[in-house]
Amino acid sequence: MSTTTAATHSTPATASSSYEELVHLAKQASLLSSSAALVSWDQEVMMPKGGLEHRSRQLSQLASITHELATAPRIGELLEACESDSAITSDPISVAAVNVREIRRSYDRRTKLPVKLVEEEATLASHGQHAWAEARKNSDFNHFKPWLEKIVKLLQTKAECFGWASDGEPWDALAEDYEPGCTAKQVAELFAPLRTQLQGLLSDLMASSTKPSNAFNELELPIEAQEKLVRFIAESIGFDFDRGRLDRSTHPFCSGTHCNDVRLTTRFAKNNVNDALGSTMHEAGHGIYEQGLLEEHIGTPMGDSVSLGIHESQSRMWENQVGRSREFWQWIYPKLKDFFGDAIAPLSLEEIYGGANIVKPDFIRVEADEATYNMHIMIRFEIERAIMKGDLAVADIPGVWNERYKEYLDLDVPDDRRGCLQDVHWSMTSMGYFPTYTLGNLYCAQFFEKAMQDIPNLMDQFAQGQFGELKSWLNTNIHAHGRRYRAADLCEHVTGKPLSAEPLMRHLEGKLRPIYGI
Amino acid sequence: MSTTTAATHSTPATASSSYEELVHLAKQASLLSSSAALVSWDQEVMMPKGGLEHRSRQLSQLASITHELATAPRIGELLEACESDSAITSDPISVAAVNVREIRRSYDRRTKLPVKLVEEEATLASHGQHAWAEARKNSDFNHFKPWLEKIVKLLQTKAECFGWASDGEPWDALAEDYEPGCTAKQVAELFAPLRTQLQGLLSDLMASSTKPSNAFNELELPIEAQEKLVRFIAESIGFDFDRGRLDRSTHPFCSGTHCNDVRLTTRFAKNNVNDALGSTMHEAGHGIYEQGLLEEHIGTPMGDSVSLGIHESQSRMWENQVGRSREFWQWIYPKLKDFFGDAIAPLSLEEIYGGANIVKPDFIRVEADEATYNMHIMIRFEIERAIMKGDLAVADIPGVWNERYKEYLDLDVPDDRRGCLQDVHWSMTSMGYFPTYTLGNLYCAQFFEKAMQDIPNLMDQFAQGQFGELKSWLNTNIHAHGRRYRAADLCEHVTGKPLSAEPLMRHLEGKLRPIYGI
Repeated sequence: MSTTTAATHSTPATASSSYEELVHLAKQASLLSSSAALVSWDQEVMMPKGGLEHRSRQLSQLASITHELATAPRIGELLEACESDSAITSDPISVAAVNVREIRRSYDRRTKLPVKLVEEEATLASHGQHAWAEARKNSDFNHFKPWLEKIVKLLQTKAECFGWASDGEPWDALAEDYEPGCTAKQVAELFAPLRTQLQGLLSDLMASSTKPSNAFNELELPIEAQEKLVRFIAESIGFDFDRGRLDRSTHPFCSGTHCNDVRLTTRFAKNNVNDALGSTMHEAGHGIYEQGLLEEHIGTPMGDSVSLGIHESQSRMWENQVGRSREFWQWIYPKLKDFFGDAIAPLSLEEIYGGANIVKPDFIRVEADEATYNMHIMIRFEIERAIMKGDLAVADIPGVWNERYKEYLDLDVPDDRRGCLQDVHWSMTSMGYFPTYTLGNLYCAQFFEKAMQDIPNLMDQFAQGQFGELKSWLNTNIHAHGRRYRAADLCEHVTGKPLSAEPLMRHLEGKLRPIYGI
Repeated sequence: MSTTTAATHSTPATASSSYEELVHLAKQASLLSSSAALVSWDQEVMMPKGGLEHRSRQLSQLASITHELATAPRIGELLEACESDSAITSDPISVAAVNVREIRRSYDRRTKLPVKLVEEEATLASHGQHAWAEARKNSDFNHFKPWLEKIVKLLQTKAECFGWASDGEPWDALAEDYEPGCTAKQVAELFAPLRTQLQGLLSDLMASSTKPSNAFNELELPIEAQEKLVRFIAESIGFDFDRGRLDRSTHPFCSGTHCNDVRLTTRFAKNNVNDALGSTMHEAGHGIYEQGLLEEHIGTPMGDSVSLGIHESQSRMWENQVGRSREFWQWIYPKLKDFFGDAIAPLSLEEIYGGANIVKPDFIRVEADEATYNMHIMIRFEIERAIMKGDLAVADIPGVWNERYKEYLDLDVPDDRRGCLQDVHWSMTSMGYFPTYTLGNLYCAQFFEKAMQDIPNLMDQFAQGQFGELKSWLNTNIHAHGRRYRAADLCEHVTGKPLSAEPLMRHLEGKLRPIYGI
């Protein structure tokens, strides 16, 4: 692998005027989509409920003009000119080569789909979500089934439009939107050893008579104090509030318009402080990535994030590797009384640290702990892969779902609401998305091991409330590259090794066994 | 005048396909500008400071695409087709005729200006504001003078592009952007008697030995409690929080994207509760107008507000005619202890009511009371009228400004910071704007007199906290018409008389003389 850093690759001085114009047009499309992102953020966080109908018209117009800008035939002409310019292509990881490669990629994806299919997908996604919400409410899979069947049919057509490698399969064509270059085969190869090892760990943990206490989460803590705490932590770990905000929303997310305007949300409940804390550190991790993109490249692929998996590696790192570490709690524990007063007094550091690391197989993915979470993902991946291949019928999803939950997590799914109807993704026509969550966990653990090697006293720094060196390491090794490398290549470039399940298992084993007294 | 109401005029069933297409295109441009309005609202209320540079790129792109949509040659063709269709034009206040007339008006204004002039104006406005801010900080008119000279020159060219009536003058061409159909001659004729009568009233008030107490404003009241109070009041007078928001900003304003998503802002200081209250009721008045536009017409002139003057008539009505009335205070006074506890106990209803109506000539327009406010406007109007005519040089503005303040308000302006540098308008290239504030006061008083005739126990309703009948009256008589009538025609249509200074003087005399014991 090349060891060249971001700084030494720049657009050649002789950059053609075609390249300049291409970058200008790409930036225009990106600029308008950044306005759409803000309008969409406002919808989730600020908009009064009466605004919904007009808001969807606004977003649909912005999407349609952005699409027009991004698929202008002129972009196709400029791409051809740039691709035949050896000054641009000779160094494939130069700024210009990367931008041309990635603009081509997204131009092709946007122009390969017939307009009719795009419109049909938007309509299906809207009806599909509606039907799914109804179905979930009543735990009635049959209400969703006809819509999911239509969605699967459409996604199969869509996959055919994009095509896949000769040794690949339809799922790959869809995953490309979320994790460029990722194939079902690779995912399956990563997941197989992960599942075996996780099952071993889980059965040991569940068999142990030592269990961490949930007392911290059972405390009723005022939401204002929780909010002050999570703001303090987000700022301490390096989220820059001069270039971002933190608000509340039903489902926490990270959005924004530019590296200098990044919007996080979180949520609060009186007796679930770990949820607010975990959500905030998670979203702040996404936000630190966005803030770490290079301003000079914003609006071009070199100023964009690599993939959902790499994005998730950044959020999980601050949420799990940092926020669930003993050293983090050593730092914050003595400060908790400043936020919560005597309510905290009865709890020891060990109790609170343990409580942040409880492992408990359960039905709902979004409430899952750090270890069992990946099992939820594997089940979804296996199902969507088979569905896309045509090996599994939509009608058979609930049965397979429930069998796998029994096999992987020893759970009897009581109903489809807590089973295969729990997630919104498929109803939005998103298949190929789920594995990015676990890929994020794997990338995260592998990156973090390397960071610990590069910064020997890293964990001790956390105990002192010092997070700047980790942030700088991420800025330099991950964020500054933009989309220079595909996720898998970035991993090799940074860690010297291909992605594997081992670092994540080392992390989980090393942390959870002692907490469970084994 | 026609007495036909909004409900009886609708698009003829035979509406041509040209009209349908015209409305569609107008709605597209309006839809995009509603996104720009939201992005701009966010800048004032939510954006972290780091976002400024990117934000101005976003707004400039949205403005430029909106301009493209609104000036598409196809619109010109469709307008011609509609204008020669007697089914549309036969009833000049039908929905279709009004939409065609007003789309024509704005299309002509947008297309009459050379692109070069528009760009030059945007650049000048940006530099001009910057120079003005510096100049005001240092009270140094000479720093702003060269920029204002350039601005005046540009505005004179702009006025020539638009043209004006043979008995008119250049100022009229600019005012058309803010108050369509309004001329300097009409304004001067309205202002002359107003000034004489105001001067008489002011000199009596200032000579009186009875002065209302300022004790309410001198109380230090917690901002959280003030916020709860102003929210309660905004909701009580009829601002619908399911279709709007209230936030904080440095300068209060009303914005939004649609009648179902209207955004107000206000501001708070510990010892100036009347400012928060007045600002909130003022902006809520603007907001109630926006929420009162007919949803079916949003995006077309029939679903738009008439002019700045009419908009201001709505804000001033809730701020002054309602919010500074004895009956309003009779209602809210006993409730104040729920918000502020015993802090309020020492103050009588009369003290608080009087304190909301203190008249005091002073230097700053935005801090002026209900009576002296109009004097500030007259001075600005006289100066900008003379400037535009070429009768006054920019260099002579400070001198004329200070002379007039002495003559109209008996004040010796101490420096230009508190004199001719206090307002941002001219630096933004806005001339012809100021009179809309006083026109708003005049329309407001004349509308309100009519509302009191139509609803005999109106003031008693306020004392009971009932504001719904006034709101309905405004909905029906003002809001539902959209831009059907020009401001002056609307006034005649609603009140049966042309606009005059008399209702405002009756309102001020009738309220202020008793408060000042004369």
